[in-house]
Amino acid sequence: MDRYNTDDMIFALATAPGRGALAVFRLSGAGCIAAFAPCFSNREKLLAAASGTLVFGEIKDIDQVLVSVFRSGHGYTGEEALEISCHGSTGSVTLMTRLLLESGFRQALPGEFTLRAFLNGRIDLTQAEAVDEIARSGTALTQKQALSRLDGAMTRRIGADRELLAEAMAAIEVQLDYAEDEIGGDTSFPYEPIEKCRADLDRLAGTFGAGRILSEGASVVLAGPANAGKSSLFNLFLKQERSIVSPVPGTTRDYIECLCSVEGIPVRLCDTAGLRQAGEEIEMEGIRRTGQLMAAADVIVYLLDASETSGSEALMQKERAEADYPAVGKVFVWNKTDLSDTSAPEGFIGLSVATAEGFAGLSHTLALMLQAGVDVNAQTVVQSPRQHQALVLCVQALDRALEMARDGVGLDAIAVELKEASDQLGFICGELTGDDILEQIFSRFCVGK
Amino acid sequence: MDRYNTDDMIFALATAPGRGALAVFRLSGAGCIAAFAPCFSNREKLLAAASGTLVFGEIKDIDQVLVSVFRSGHGYTGEEALEISCHGSTGSVTLMTRLLLESGFRQALPGEFTLRAFLNGRIDLTQAEAVDEIARSGTALTQKQALSRLDGAMTRRIGADRELLAEAMAAIEVQLDYAEDEIGGDTSFPYEPIEKCRADLDRLAGTFGAGRILSEGASVVLAGPANAGKSSLFNLFLKQERSIVSPVPGTTRDYIECLCSVEGIPVRLCDTAGLRQAGEEIEMEGIRRTGQLMAAADVIVYLLDASETSGSEALMQKERAEADYPAVGKVFVWNKTDLSDTSAPEGFIGLSVATAEGFAGLSHTLALMLQAGVDVNAQTVVQSPRQHQALVLCVQALDRALEMARDGVGLDAIAVELKEASDQLGFICGELTGDDILEQIFSRFCVGK
Repeated sequence: MDRYNTDDMIFALATAPGRGALAVFRLSGAGCIAAFAPCFSNREKLLAAASGTLVFGEIKDIDQVLVSVFRSGHGYTGEEALEISCHGSTGSVTLMTRLLLESGFRQALPGEFTLRAFLNGRIDLTQAEAVDEIARSGTALTQKQALSRLDGAMTRRIGADRELLAEAMAAIEVQLDYAEDEIGGDTSFPYEPIEKCRADLDRLAGTFGAGRILSEGASVVLAGPANAGKSSLFNLFLKQERSIVSPVPGTTRDYIECLCSVEGIPVRLCDTAGLRQAGEEIEMEGIRRTGQLMAAADVIVYLLDASETSGSEALMQKERAEADYPAVGKVFVWNKTDLSDTSAPEGFIGLSVATAEGFAGLSHTLALMLQAGVDVNAQTVVQSPRQHQALVLCVQALDRALEMARDGVGLDAIAVELKEASDQLGFICGELTGDDILEQIFSRFCVGK
Repeated sequence: MDRYNTDDMIFALATAPGRGALAVFRLSGAGCIAAFAPCFSNREKLLAAASGTLVFGEIKDIDQVLVSVFRSGHGYTGEEALEISCHGSTGSVTLMTRLLLESGFRQALPGEFTLRAFLNGRIDLTQAEAVDEIARSGTALTQKQALSRLDGAMTRRIGADRELLAEAMAAIEVQLDYAEDEIGGDTSFPYEPIEKCRADLDRLAGTFGAGRILSEGASVVLAGPANAGKSSLFNLFLKQERSIVSPVPGTTRDYIECLCSVEGIPVRLCDTAGLRQAGEEIEMEGIRRTGQLMAAADVIVYLLDASETSGSEALMQKERAEADYPAVGKVFVWNKTDLSDTSAPEGFIGLSVATAEGFAGLSHTLALMLQAGVDVNAQTVVQSPRQHQALVLCVQALDRALEMARDGVGLDAIAVELKEASDQLGFICGELTGDDILEQIFSRFCVGK
């Protein structure tokens, strides 16, 4: 890790850029308190301050600040560190940055504080990754999941399996080291612990689909003929959940997509209405793209206009949608019930977008469909592609070991596979992780983390 | 102050909105520690924590946070208060906001923390206004000025004058209360202290022009014929000072204006180039507007193209500019010295925008001209229009008192004028400031201050 030199004193603006009442600078590295003290009016008190205390003072010609002190072994990174809370103005932030650069600090690289926390043994790699997941989480459910991993839930979750595997490996090791007659105890192959371990880790790897939904949001597409009320329903979803609505970053596609939450499950809601409104040629292209979107969705919400559609027509359209997108979850909505006396056809949910009547029921149905893929009560869900890959490789190695045992292959070869499986579990927690991979993981973080 | 109910527990996100590594919530009000504690894992430690200490813990299903504790009589507001540092993600901020609302906290109004600091006697009104000035300051010099006022410099600055005035008023009061023969001492009118006080406060009021430049930036207009290099010079100024460059907010005019710093002095730099580039009719309108801009500027920087202008022509143009804008500071620049052998005519500064040769000299000349209006060494400069108005009213009352004394008007009437002058000084520090005016002052602040 050439760039992430751990001997340097580093700093970063840890709060969001832009104007606020307060801005916080994070400083970390051996000697950082002594390096900062000369700029600070309340020098003696700072130098003598205990870990976990606050010191108020002035930085000459720059600002009045409140400094949080962390001695080595305490605080986020586990190194000697300071957090400086100053006024959140352009002037304060610019002048503080200049001062820290002149005082021997280096601007921190992305994720560098968390990397140091990991290298100093304050957190393991699954916890470090949870820090990044929390930064990206948008709903209460994703936050809860990431928080539990931050608390070490993933490491605890695979802990029992690591122990089972270690015991099995030890038993095999004994058989390898001594002749059969030298061993008093059991010399049978330890199928049971390895199979138990394999089944459990496979189950854990299987939560990755849910993890994807939790991290990226489920893709829900609003479809149906023009004027069925798709855009109104889109707005209703966003309005009901406005606190966490945000446009999906980097979206430059020509349909509207927003991140919202449906009963705690993050949803990328996509309104296809815009695709159908232009002229003839664009129309065809629009229909093609809508088709692609719908085929790739987690759930399609299909709207019909109750005031303009007969019951038999509705059922025909439903049948066609079932045939066109067999693999995708579908919710059929009978909209504009306020304008029609026709009751909802079988399999349709009645809704009036205008009065919001039926909306709660629709939300709940949608949430139940998405929950089928997301076990919201699961204690731990795999969200990191890196952790998922390691789990899959671990399960594959265990499969090979079990097959070799059944085929009567020698214990030497089996031990190699078990070692591979065990290493993959260590890799998840960051015990056997190379510098290049660490750099790759932490460089995805934001600066100040 | 109906809206600013001081009995409520208030909270606000104090850091800039948007994603960052950290976000800080400020909480203030009697009982706020007990109100927050039930949500917090490390409850007992928090409830027992001393002022100025940090407590780490978890808020269930939301985040791991670091809490700074301030007991009543400490901290910014002087009330019992907490600062909660959580992860700067949408999830954390949304869930924290919801939790605090459910826990009995009210979202703080603009400036409400600073208002409480003022009402609790932690700071006076000039210091409170300095908090807002720091938030708006963009350069090292404005920051330094605002910081000195935050430290109470304005109150100290007028303190001596308030004492002089109080002594003069006491002397007059004695003469009013007792007959002449009852008083042993001096019965002459105290001209000297009142005149001294008047002169000093008038001088202080006179710094308001400099205060305006420091708070709004000096207006510097780049002028001259097409292709003289105005836009290149504009970019050069911005590039040299890029750390604090920002477009002036709310600018929707059809010329380009940016805030930059020239040797620490904030400058609104205006490029008039855009005005001359369109057709005939727009040209006339453009020239009219450029004229308005130039007449209102603090300094005009007038560029000529050395490769296309003769020395005598340059001097003629200089003379015309002197005649057209007699009241405005002017810097004449002989640009493109790299393309011409003609030496700069008298009164012109040689510059090559292409190589930046001569730019440092030009910057320095400009800074010296601006400093003539801004005494950068002055300890205290009036920046608040409110404080300036009070100073002017104070000086006017002192003038009336002195005139009345010279005209032999009775001491009763003079005492009324001196009381008015003294009240205006008290008003500056916020001692006699009505609720409506306080509300007006603090509502300009940002939320979280």
